Amino acid sequence: MTVKKKFVHVCLSPMMIDQFDVSEAIVVVIDVLRATTSMCVAFDNGAELIVPLEHIEETEAYREKGFLIAGERSGEQLEGFDFGNSPFSFTKENVGGKRIAITTTNGTRAIKAAQERNAHEIVVGSFSNFTALTDWLIAQNRHVCLLCSGWRDHPTMEDTIFAGAVVRRLRHDFRQFQDTALMAEALFQSANIRKRYFFTHSSHYNRLIHLNLQEEVKYCLRRDTHPVIPMMIGNALHEISRYEGDYHELKARILEKTPSW
Amino acid sequence: MTVKKKFVHVCLSPMMIDQFDVSEAIVVVIDVLRATTSMCVAFDNGAELIVPLEHIEETEAYREKGFLIAGERSGEQLEGFDFGNSPFSFTKENVGGKRIAITTTNGTRAIKAAQERNAHEIVVGSFSNFTALTDWLIAQNRHVCLLCSGWRDHPTMEDTIFAGAVVRRLRHDFRQFQDTALMAEALFQSANIRKRYFFTHSSHYNRLIHLNLQEEVKYCLRRDTHPVIPMMIGNALHEISRYEGDYHELKARILEKTPSW
Repeated sequence: MTVKKKFVHVCLSPMMIDQFDVSEAIVVVIDVLRATTSMCVAFDNGAELIVPLEHIEETEAYREKGFLIAGERSGEQLEGFDFGNSPFSFTKENVGGKRIAITTTNGTRAIKAAQERNAHEIVVGSFSNFTALTDWLIAQNRHVCLLCSGWRDHPTMEDTIFAGAVVRRLRHDFRQFQDTALMAEALFQSANIRKRYFFTHSSHYNRLIHLNLQEEVKYCLRRDTHPVIPMMIGNALHEISRYEGDYHELKARILEKTPSW
Repeated sequence: MTVKKKFVHVCLSPMMIDQFDVSEAIVVVIDVLRATTSMCVAFDNGAELIVPLEHIEETEAYREKGFLIAGERSGEQLEGFDFGNSPFSFTKENVGGKRIAITTTNGTRAIKAAQERNAHEIVVGSFSNFTALTDWLIAQNRHVCLLCSGWRDHPTMEDTIFAGAVVRRLRHDFRQFQDTALMAEALFQSANIRKRYFFTHSSHYNRLIHLNLQEEVKYCLRRDTHPVIPMMIGNALHEISRYEGDYHELKARILEKTPSW
């Protein structure tokens, strides 16, 4: 018996998500610089859950519910928020056992776009959880759609390179590489050879460097520093990799207890 | 005095054209397999003008105006049309001195999208007019937006590789390479090393190979076979490279004589 392998697709920008039927797929939301990296850091440091939100006002409203609030626009922290979008701020001391509401320029919008398209599951990817994530994806036997958050709907270098790294890792276990998946994989391979050239020419890298965030950017490009799997359950992200049973049980339990924040 | 160089941008799909202000830019519409290649062939073989159209019915209506009509959907010629989208059919015998109306799956839609965005000029690019086109672009001192037609709004390998080849050629005369331009250029460089791999894995290549169009595909990937510059003037493409004066004069004259087909 031959088993038909599942596909892996790459969506280069949230504005293109309508081209993909993701109702049977796991959507991996990617915002390497820095939203999805920061989310992995926060969970690895013990955050209980993270509610991703599109708008500033709705995020501020979570303070009254006992949440910490994180907000960023164009790379900078919003006034009156506990955090911006820096992975360095989501330390054990700051977020251990805490609930967080977050709004960012691109990453949280991409999660919203995947929800609106009724993705089968939505998880979060970054270099920091690369191996944990790809191992998990291989184990699920489901279609995968890698959704790059980009920058205001423009495809970006770093998200596309990360998607290409995932395609490369999944190559033997998945099928139907469309052109964008092959393009991302080729870009990843070029970037692997000339890392400095690619990252230093990316526009968002330069935006962050102008904000003096060199160390953060370097941190976001390191692999496997935070081996977590943040998954949308209801309207919040939860970390599922530490649960030993089938994640569906965990999901059902969370949904029963806290249907919506 | 330092002269500020113009930018070159790459738009990976017509659905992303709204992200670019092209009112001061020359938009190069790219549909390597096969619409923009066929247009270059037709002009090099003496076609007088080509009206690109979105819909089948409006294209058929041009027959009454004395036009030859070309129509393609999903790689195949439309019934009752003089031509499909094959570069081999636009021979001197068939199209010399003739007016053509054409509708294709992707290329003619991309031209429409550029028109709706009020592009400063719209020209047509393919490997067949690569050097003539890039020389001309360098001479214009205008912003350039390379618009890949893609496949039903999905970015495609061959159009992105061509855009990357143009970026590479314009590198020293233009500035502000955004991420998509750098990504296309990197893809072109990878493809230059492993040509067979990239083209044989592209989805549209395989679509055409299944239709037994190997020879056509090979032809579409050859450089500088038809050194023309097809430009939208009014609602028709005209060949401007053989006019010895400033093309604006030619344009004004054409618009005066035939404001609209």
